[in-house]
Amino acid sequence: MFQTFDVTARPEQGPPRLEALRTELQREGLDGFLVPRSDAHQGEYVAPGDERLAWLTGFTGSAGFCAVLRDVAGVFIDGRYRTQVKQQVAEVFTPVHWPEVQLADWLKEQLPTGGRIGYDPWLHSASQMQGLDLHGFEFVPVDNLVDRIWQDQPTPPVQPVIAHPLSYAGTSASEKTASLAQELRDAGHSAAVITLPDSIMWLLNIRGSDIAHNPVAHGFAILHADARVDLFMAEEKLTGVRDHLGADVAVHAPQTFLSAVAELAQAKDASVTVDLTTLPRIVADQLGDALVAAGDPCALPKARKCAAEIAGSAAAHLRDGAAVVETLAWLDAQPPGSITEIDVVKHLEATRRKDPKLRDISFETISGTGPNGAIIHYRVSEDSNAALLDGHLLVLDSGGQYLDGTTDITRTLAIGTPPQEAREAYTRVLQGMIAMSRLRWPKGLAGRDIEAVGRMPLWLAGQDFNHGLGHGVGAFLSVHEGPQRLSRAGTVPLEPGMILSNEPGYYREGAFGIRIENLLVVEPAPELDSADAEREMLCWRTLTYAPLDRRLIVVDLLTTAERDWLNAYHADVAAKIGPNVTDPAQSWLDAATAPL
Amino acid sequence: MFQTFDVTARPEQGPPRLEALRTELQREGLDGFLVPRSDAHQGEYVAPGDERLAWLTGFTGSAGFCAVLRDVAGVFIDGRYRTQVKQQVAEVFTPVHWPEVQLADWLKEQLPTGGRIGYDPWLHSASQMQGLDLHGFEFVPVDNLVDRIWQDQPTPPVQPVIAHPLSYAGTSASEKTASLAQELRDAGHSAAVITLPDSIMWLLNIRGSDIAHNPVAHGFAILHADARVDLFMAEEKLTGVRDHLGADVAVHAPQTFLSAVAELAQAKDASVTVDLTTLPRIVADQLGDALVAAGDPCALPKARKCAAEIAGSAAAHLRDGAAVVETLAWLDAQPPGSITEIDVVKHLEATRRKDPKLRDISFETISGTGPNGAIIHYRVSEDSNAALLDGHLLVLDSGGQYLDGTTDITRTLAIGTPPQEAREAYTRVLQGMIAMSRLRWPKGLAGRDIEAVGRMPLWLAGQDFNHGLGHGVGAFLSVHEGPQRLSRAGTVPLEPGMILSNEPGYYREGAFGIRIENLLVVEPAPELDSADAEREMLCWRTLTYAPLDRRLIVVDLLTTAERDWLNAYHADVAAKIGPNVTDPAQSWLDAATAPL
Repeated sequence: MFQTFDVTARPEQGPPRLEALRTELQREGLDGFLVPRSDAHQGEYVAPGDERLAWLTGFTGSAGFCAVLRDVAGVFIDGRYRTQVKQQVAEVFTPVHWPEVQLADWLKEQLPTGGRIGYDPWLHSASQMQGLDLHGFEFVPVDNLVDRIWQDQPTPPVQPVIAHPLSYAGTSASEKTASLAQELRDAGHSAAVITLPDSIMWLLNIRGSDIAHNPVAHGFAILHADARVDLFMAEEKLTGVRDHLGADVAVHAPQTFLSAVAELAQAKDASVTVDLTTLPRIVADQLGDALVAAGDPCALPKARKCAAEIAGSAAAHLRDGAAVVETLAWLDAQPPGSITEIDVVKHLEATRRKDPKLRDISFETISGTGPNGAIIHYRVSEDSNAALLDGHLLVLDSGGQYLDGTTDITRTLAIGTPPQEAREAYTRVLQGMIAMSRLRWPKGLAGRDIEAVGRMPLWLAGQDFNHGLGHGVGAFLSVHEGPQRLSRAGTVPLEPGMILSNEPGYYREGAFGIRIENLLVVEPAPELDSADAEREMLCWRTLTYAPLDRRLIVVDLLTTAERDWLNAYHADVAAKIGPNVTDPAQSWLDAATAPL
Repeated sequence: MFQTFDVTARPEQGPPRLEALRTELQREGLDGFLVPRSDAHQGEYVAPGDERLAWLTGFTGSAGFCAVLRDVAGVFIDGRYRTQVKQQVAEVFTPVHWPEVQLADWLKEQLPTGGRIGYDPWLHSASQMQGLDLHGFEFVPVDNLVDRIWQDQPTPPVQPVIAHPLSYAGTSASEKTASLAQELRDAGHSAAVITLPDSIMWLLNIRGSDIAHNPVAHGFAILHADARVDLFMAEEKLTGVRDHLGADVAVHAPQTFLSAVAELAQAKDASVTVDLTTLPRIVADQLGDALVAAGDPCALPKARKCAAEIAGSAAAHLRDGAAVVETLAWLDAQPPGSITEIDVVKHLEATRRKDPKLRDISFETISGTGPNGAIIHYRVSEDSNAALLDGHLLVLDSGGQYLDGTTDITRTLAIGTPPQEAREAYTRVLQGMIAMSRLRWPKGLAGRDIEAVGRMPLWLAGQDFNHGLGHGVGAFLSVHEGPQRLSRAGTVPLEPGMILSNEPGYYREGAFGIRIENLLVVEPAPELDSADAEREMLCWRTLTYAPLDRRLIVVDLLTTAERDWLNAYHADVAAKIGPNVTDPAQSWLDAATAPL
């Protein structure tokens, strides 16, 4: 299994570790030390040896940090984790509502006269640390104090890197580096420092498995304006891809990265582009005046998938859809009360694993029934595992990392006979999902300019959901990929080739949850007779094919256009997925996709 | 008539005036001089003596500026005025596409080695001038060179100021000043400088008529943290309101404003808030280190109308709706080809003028038929005036300034039998207008977060319109009021009491135009059974009542919900407006509001 169901929180381990850390504080003459969740690459998942926040506090959420002072230790967590943190951390830790309460304000309250706060300059981005040195506080870069006291800290992962073949990537690494190097030259820059693992994987057409569920290897890269690349990555990971990397990629030990950056900065007319929001502070300091905050040069070209990447993603989605349909058909044959959330996760993963192209799941499957479904980032464990009972809904949010593409799909299923109010809410979520799927919009708009379309049906009923409508998705890369987003934070114009999720939801705390998610790819909109000739419009092409639970749809609430869309989608599901499933699943699918 | 139809452009007057200005350039040793459209108050309308841009160049648009250099004179105009500028200015002026081309870039191209550019520091805001001093250019504040050569320049207006009674304002001036002064004290500021005329009118519950269509008087104000107000305004305007202003408002000559600001800045611990986007640069320079860019303190409280203001606006809208209905009924009785655009403007103004509470129209009525309807900011003149022909549409966008409220309404009317494609486009515009009117949305969202809802029906047909969906509207104040906006530039959260327009459109160049506009006020949304208890939602209440042309609606394109909304709206129009119109108009209204 890629997924485990262990209860990882051990609140009782926190206090002695906190005490040990405070001894180090004293030794260093510091008033505090920051323990972030992130590693040097600012990704969503980190390696076991980088789980410093969880090791120290017990809190296992995917975002947050701890500010350890001599008398108080604040655990800063956002809205998603307010309940979870209380179960996971001991009383010596104080949960702080973040970002409502900002670190600077909290510190000022705890230490009115200021103080010296230590931090590991590899783990905080340059922009995170900007503007903190105020109100009498001095932020001091130091060795990581947690690493000093963590006796059995796992060593960094050294998993083998594989080549991502041209048939999937569509564009060779040398074409990519040549094109980005040209951009650097055109803008008068000498180099770009790249620290995001998925950017490095995309640029060099390689994939890794250093961390769970993300096909990336940890490392750093410098792209020079002459198209040479310095790759700072442990040699043993690269044994299988030396030929693939070719002569223009020089491999160096990761330990030499910082001195290489220093050398870069000292060159005459050095102008080195970086992404300040993810660049480790220590690298920014080395660059000094040579630093240019121009963003990660791979971000946009990586987001704009080429034809081969879209074809790969579409193919992966059809096989993934078949796996989902097998599990949904099996699930429907189980009497209410006879199986649990974990049983569903196991069945789905086992079905997906039959595909030889599957490398991993793309995140830990969310399988939440009844009240658990209302926890947006629910992770089922042996402790929380609930039986699927009559009248409940099941939110099933999962995905796979296939060699040809990354998937992410959510379906909400009826167990037995669900209540009418849940069916009505499901129908509104579906209407939002359909409205976004059907949309065309003028070229140049960003996610935030169109997101309301997917929320409006819920709004009209006085309902909403506390997450974005959608996120970017990579091509056999991160399942959460920027900068494309379908949310109020999505400021980058949507462009053809970008893959995003469309996932409205509804969550009634203590009762039930609903989410429906398809992945979509942006395309130029086909011509219409009514269209303005000079106005370029974009639209979506759906990648995800799996039935939407007909038992949860209140047909009378749908407009004709919505019902037409749904019936056409179900016809597509039957045609595209039907031929690839077992006979029992095929029969189930015929019924599940019958016109409404 | 409040409105005139003169052809004001005299391209032939430009060249000699430009030559005279260049003589002044030479005399001052300047390489250029900036002539903006704005006055010291940065409003949309300016007094005749402030029409420097039109006087010099002939261009009469409501935005833009001229950069006069020794060999070239660039007229910077935005997308709305690309056609108009060509008709209005002589060949010695070069139209520049702004904001695509920025002043700094254009200057760099014209004067690669830099130069000294003069400007009048009263007419440019502090933020406009920020960041310009680059690339070898020096921007030099000087006396206005246009004023030197403009022999018969009109003197500043001195129209009498009237009191805006408490029954309309709802909140006394002393309550307003006390509340804003408290905010200043709470934030540690000593004073606020206020230069926007509508803010001063709102704060002191007065109205003026210095400029056309806006019930404001020109002046400046300083609100002190102890709630005293210094008002810098010509004494003769204030004869009728000295008692109304009371003892806490000290009146000073406008010429003493700058020295009062200097004195303010020199006080111990001076901290003076301003709105950098509208504050004249010369005032910012006087404030120096005392300046705090905190925005105009009146902006938000002015935007959030109180109950009396909303009641006044609603009452004004009912009377205004009756006037519109009279004109629409009259219009419908005229055979195609028998009347012109100007005839409609005259009839509508004459009808509105029967209301004793009418003080002015709120802007020059847009009456555009056939291809003229596709010109978004069309101003009908004797030259452009077109007959209303069979098969054409008429866009009629107008409003009134009443003592109790400001109105702004657009209706698009069928003349004879319009083509099917125009009817379909009208129906989509109507669907967008209905979608926004029906919306409820979570509290905290800004205009840009919901604007897509009003565009979506057009987008689905490959269509869109090149203006915002809506703007803020004042309470017997500016018909374009900030900061509330229903557009991609609307970043301020919508709050109960804010009045905005909802005006989707569609424009097919050379063929026809369509716009439908109602004013709406934000309200807390009424309870719904389905609503989340903890989620505060807002909704609209419609203020504008007048029929939507049934002949232009393709009923089959409407959903049931849209048709229900339309029929309910028309029933309201009949009930609210019917009793207040003449018998012939009443009969017409009955037919025009019959259910579809």
